[in-house]
Amino acid sequence: MKIVIINSGSSSIKYQLIDMPSKEVICSGMIDRIGLETSNFTYKTNKDSIEEILPIANHKIGLEKISQLLLDETIGVIKSTQEIEAVGHRVVHGGASFSDTVMIDDEVKEKIKQLFELAPLHNPANLEGIIVAEEVFPSAKQVAVFDTAFHQTMPEVAYRYAIPNYLLTENKIRAYGFHGTSHKYVSEKAIGFLKKSSKIITIHLGNGCSITAVKDGKSIDHSMGFGPMNGLVMGTRSGDIDQSVIFYMVNTLGYQLSEVNTVLQKQSGMLGLTGHSDLRDIQANAEKGDVNCQLALDMNVYRIKKYIGSYAAVLNGIDAIVFTAGIGENSAYIRKSVCADMQFLGLELDETKNDIRSSDIREINTPNSKTKILVVPTNEELEIANQVYDLILN
Amino acid sequence: MKIVIINSGSSSIKYQLIDMPSKEVICSGMIDRIGLETSNFTYKTNKDSIEEILPIANHKIGLEKISQLLLDETIGVIKSTQEIEAVGHRVVHGGASFSDTVMIDDEVKEKIKQLFELAPLHNPANLEGIIVAEEVFPSAKQVAVFDTAFHQTMPEVAYRYAIPNYLLTENKIRAYGFHGTSHKYVSEKAIGFLKKSSKIITIHLGNGCSITAVKDGKSIDHSMGFGPMNGLVMGTRSGDIDQSVIFYMVNTLGYQLSEVNTVLQKQSGMLGLTGHSDLRDIQANAEKGDVNCQLALDMNVYRIKKYIGSYAAVLNGIDAIVFTAGIGENSAYIRKSVCADMQFLGLELDETKNDIRSSDIREINTPNSKTKILVVPTNEELEIANQVYDLILN
Repeated sequence: MKIVIINSGSSSIKYQLIDMPSKEVICSGMIDRIGLETSNFTYKTNKDSIEEILPIANHKIGLEKISQLLLDETIGVIKSTQEIEAVGHRVVHGGASFSDTVMIDDEVKEKIKQLFELAPLHNPANLEGIIVAEEVFPSAKQVAVFDTAFHQTMPEVAYRYAIPNYLLTENKIRAYGFHGTSHKYVSEKAIGFLKKSSKIITIHLGNGCSITAVKDGKSIDHSMGFGPMNGLVMGTRSGDIDQSVIFYMVNTLGYQLSEVNTVLQKQSGMLGLTGHSDLRDIQANAEKGDVNCQLALDMNVYRIKKYIGSYAAVLNGIDAIVFTAGIGENSAYIRKSVCADMQFLGLELDETKNDIRSSDIREINTPNSKTKILVVPTNEELEIANQVYDLILN
Repeated sequence: MKIVIINSGSSSIKYQLIDMPSKEVICSGMIDRIGLETSNFTYKTNKDSIEEILPIANHKIGLEKISQLLLDETIGVIKSTQEIEAVGHRVVHGGASFSDTVMIDDEVKEKIKQLFELAPLHNPANLEGIIVAEEVFPSAKQVAVFDTAFHQTMPEVAYRYAIPNYLLTENKIRAYGFHGTSHKYVSEKAIGFLKKSSKIITIHLGNGCSITAVKDGKSIDHSMGFGPMNGLVMGTRSGDIDQSVIFYMVNTLGYQLSEVNTVLQKQSGMLGLTGHSDLRDIQANAEKGDVNCQLALDMNVYRIKKYIGSYAAVLNGIDAIVFTAGIGENSAYIRKSVCADMQFLGLELDETKNDIRSSDIREINTPNSKTKILVVPTNEELEIANQVYDLILN
């Protein structure tokens, strides 16, 4: 069964064509800078690879271009769009309406639209991707996979804020959580690897960073809340910060509220502390003695350690912690620093195993470590394909 | 040595006259609603007790009234204001300038004034109390004890936010921490009781609530940050909340920023969740089956547990947790709930000991508990007197 995965952003489309259940990626690529004269377009199969710069005016033209290449006589991979059984769409915000992957109909589209207010940067682009895909792949089933869905199992104590009740009941203000597709994928992989349902903490460290307490396969707490800017220190996002800073910046320092938002989302995190947002640059500078870079690394690690402790309390002890995503999978330094001085939780890192690079799921603790330390490569596109496939079969 | 302790608020003065080193409280009382026709005035010695309603126009008139009663021939306790060796002032915000108790001079007053912006509700009233006390007790030494001072030992990883560096260097935005006088007092008592310097967590649960990680007697992390509204769930304050909620309330729901501040400071916390801010009412209602009240208690406890876990990570394990202040000292229910399902940290509560009411420092864990659970009554006025006394002697 051929499934197209679409991750549609405000000016970009990432796509994969995956064969299920073989999990073979037949084709993948992306378009960004949609709407400009200089859009980037990539298309890659196991034989061919195309990179082009050309004007792509809108999402519809972009998806039509993808479809043309898929059907192309020489470098295409399908004979007819009818071969596409389903299109799986990443949708960022499912609010409290969606706790699972769903077949898209008018009601689902209407609900995604109602959630524009909660995810103004993402949901409109996601819906645009759905509407365009319905036209370009008219015979395919359209399926929505929500980033928030995995966290819908969080209990009230975890998702509620201590604010007046009407802000929840009337205005839907609560923690939703994000990166759910990744946390679900790696926690299931980890449970399979551990061969038991268990108490684990999944640590997704990419450009965005978040951490989840997973009990018996279910998310029970998570570091991102109402929006995707709090929790861990990220590339350009501040993560957790005392809310009184916002009032002070506006009332006393004279910032516009929109400027404060820009500072906290785009000029903070590792970038704000060091001038760099790429962890490799920061690590290289820290090694040369740059104190700001060293402090930023230390703060990043310190915040992760605090969340691990916090979720250990929520879970009353843990069986494993799991590192994933770009930094989590590749930075031996961050993993080592996070696991240092954590004997109270039974974490004992094997430094040799930690230093080995691999794209496989692996255990990097010593044989004596009471708590397992795993690296599990994430694969959000494959997780979406899995969910679409399961939904269609059942 | 007779020391007057003054805690001057915007429309109130709390005072005690304490003899040192005997620690005897010779006299205590308060004035509130200063500026109104119906100010409340109380004055209490071990023989007499006065409660009056009368107009008290300003802090100077209030402190003069206190001084008159102290000198009164029948109910007074001193013959001359010259008997007052020192006046100890509680000052809420010492910024990064004060890491210790100091003798007040013009430079200190100027610095307290420079910190008005960081504590607009508190520091102006504190300075007013100092200026008035200099006039009313002209021969006494004036000493400032800062709420933030104890937390000045926090390392950079704990007090820095992941925001652009100029917001720290130019605008002094960082975590300062509060309730320092209480956390210092109870942590020292606990260390004395445990007979060793150690890794402890002090949990101050009063009308305001906060929690501190204390290593070898020094604060190394704390739940309140730049201002006193984040961290634990409080009577009317939200404690921690995703900052994106503020942007949403203003940009999408149409709140004024000042209204959001009022909601989060005065209409949130236990009040916002239940309609009640007094824990005893909430507990009584929860027992009768009120689900909102039960959830608010659960959220309160859950937040405390998460901070305990987080600080256990910071400390790499703990020797003791310490409950203090109104709720911490008196609510067996909250203590029991916090300690439940915390075996991973070696907490084992003795429920019988937990239920005993006492005003003494006490251990409420079982003999087998690996981690001690203590109740230590706080006494901020005595701590201020201690610090003033020590400063004068040394």
